[in-house]
Amino acid sequence: MKRFFPDGSLWVSAEARIEAIDQRFLPFRRVVFAMESPGEVFYAIREMVVRGAPLIGVAAAFGVYLGVYGCPGQDCVRCAEETARYLEGSRPTAVNLFKATRRMVRCLDPSLSREENLGRLFREACRTREEETEACRRIGENGLPLIEALAARKQGRPVEILTHCNAGWLACVKWGTALAPVYLAHEKGIPLHVWVDETRPRNQGARLTAWELGLAGIPHTVIPDNAGGHLMQHGRVDLVIVGSDRTTLNGDVANKTGTYLKALAARDNNLPFYAALPVSTIDPGLEVGVRNIPVEERDQEEVAFAEGWDGRKLRRVRLTPSASPAANYAFDVTPARLVTGLITEKGLCRADRQSIATLLSE
Amino acid sequence: MKRFFPDGSLWVSAEARIEAIDQRFLPFRRVVFAMESPGEVFYAIREMVVRGAPLIGVAAAFGVYLGVYGCPGQDCVRCAEETARYLEGSRPTAVNLFKATRRMVRCLDPSLSREENLGRLFREACRTREEETEACRRIGENGLPLIEALAARKQGRPVEILTHCNAGWLACVKWGTALAPVYLAHEKGIPLHVWVDETRPRNQGARLTAWELGLAGIPHTVIPDNAGGHLMQHGRVDLVIVGSDRTTLNGDVANKTGTYLKALAARDNNLPFYAALPVSTIDPGLEVGVRNIPVEERDQEEVAFAEGWDGRKLRRVRLTPSASPAANYAFDVTPARLVTGLITEKGLCRADRQSIATLLSE
Repeated sequence: MKRFFPDGSLWVSAEARIEAIDQRFLPFRRVVFAMESPGEVFYAIREMVVRGAPLIGVAAAFGVYLGVYGCPGQDCVRCAEETARYLEGSRPTAVNLFKATRRMVRCLDPSLSREENLGRLFREACRTREEETEACRRIGENGLPLIEALAARKQGRPVEILTHCNAGWLACVKWGTALAPVYLAHEKGIPLHVWVDETRPRNQGARLTAWELGLAGIPHTVIPDNAGGHLMQHGRVDLVIVGSDRTTLNGDVANKTGTYLKALAARDNNLPFYAALPVSTIDPGLEVGVRNIPVEERDQEEVAFAEGWDGRKLRRVRLTPSASPAANYAFDVTPARLVTGLITEKGLCRADRQSIATLLSE
Repeated sequence: MKRFFPDGSLWVSAEARIEAIDQRFLPFRRVVFAMESPGEVFYAIREMVVRGAPLIGVAAAFGVYLGVYGCPGQDCVRCAEETARYLEGSRPTAVNLFKATRRMVRCLDPSLSREENLGRLFREACRTREEETEACRRIGENGLPLIEALAARKQGRPVEILTHCNAGWLACVKWGTALAPVYLAHEKGIPLHVWVDETRPRNQGARLTAWELGLAGIPHTVIPDNAGGHLMQHGRVDLVIVGSDRTTLNGDVANKTGTYLKALAARDNNLPFYAALPVSTIDPGLEVGVRNIPVEERDQEEVAFAEGWDGRKLRRVRLTPSASPAANYAFDVTPARLVTGLITEKGLCRADRQSIATLLSE
């Protein structure tokens, strides 16, 4: 990461445009996507040019800035409010999105000039980016002792970590959430091996997590989403760490579809299952998750087709009979009872109401 | 099935060749694969031209016949034994394969002429095929009351069934195992809807089960293997039925990788989880499964690539970075404690030692 992408997955360019790695082309091509309007930010979030709860929040923050910047004649506050509402319609599950846009609207002062407010918006978006980066670094530090403890037990054999989807630096500007402790452990020389769930239908594990880990030189193996239970039954997994798109006050964790199944398998095999997340993904408005977190339903074509590299370009191939419908629920909710703990920038936290309340009040 | 493939997925042609639907091209093309030697049968099993525990057994039975037929100068018994051992190396997990080849060897009588023994082998292979077909029909009849009971509770709303991989007539000559009760229920006019796990890495659900159900006019939806837990949490599944490649004497069920995860989700949501299987898939030599059933490890390219239809032909596209290794464990073992029951041709049976012993002794 450091060598190839010193600014992480999203940055402000010399021309004050917002630029991001276009994650749709990874791991096959390195393409930069430039955003100069809220429409381009909306597109980037909706089409998953940028994805991952923290990164979506940062992109949306800059999107609100771009909205006000692009409407010189209008009232700043109204324009920011309208842009925020527009961007909030891009993807429904990650709560960071809403938190970031609300925060942008709140930073405005109607008594100040347009120029001053624009400056405020730009600084607030940059601050959001820096805070998410810093939160991820500290998630890494707080999760590291879990891996160190396992390493001590394994006496030189690699610590086997299973992860689902991509919760690395691509999802979070820098470091990542679930992968932050992995990166820190690797830097400290702890022997590791990561089982990477491919994460159908969009294969963020096979494409993004495998690429990130390869870039960092961390040993890893891509597996079908079906394989984790078998590996756990046979003692091939020591620890499961995933990210979270939204966590409720009782510790229910919404994350990429299939996470719940891995949490069940971890419990059945007495293995620790952690969700790593910045506190910004905790939704203070939701008490419990399984029934209440809105789960995005995406285009069924993502299921009916697989996208990959044909040697020259990205190509989609059909997997299903053309007459067969498909369904594409992008997330699921893992009940708190299956979550060993949350790894946050404020420290480790049990996935229960009281521990989370204490964490939020600190 | 009846209209398009009156002889099921494998048959004896007019020229006494063995022919089968080449399942590698479904659902996109209908190709027939002809087998005239044990080498072709070995290839067909290994490369999954034919797959599914019952069908593998039937193909191997005809393979032993072809082995003796093709070696006119040799001792029948020795030739059958050698062919059997050769075919047993094609795939390690389905126990039917071994049972079918052993049965073929046993039917020979060294005191009879070569012609007489060849006749015995041919009849024994045909009998294996007929018995598997008949067993599947009865599995359907024995599983039907489970669906009827759910239908009564649902008062006209469709019974929602989730299945993994393909355990339909393609896997079993005719009817199928897991799908046999579904076909019978549909014929009786019971409203049904089937959630079809795509079943990575080879997508037997997306390609074969969806095709079978579409052909029969049964409503169905293809889902990623990650989605079943979410659907169960939200009351969208009434019953899980899967097949089995090998079942142990204590009721542990080896089936396609990922089955164990669905069994865990069914248990967590208090849903019935049944394995439908001919008694021929019960391995009298294995007491317990999780540690003892050999799990086939297939080529990692099946994980690194996805195969689908590009509009003109089958094409593979790469999903992973070329430097990232992948692992491909083809099966997993669901512990008996998660299995509500076994649906066999001899009736329903609990997944425990005593019930299975009683079943086998009947």
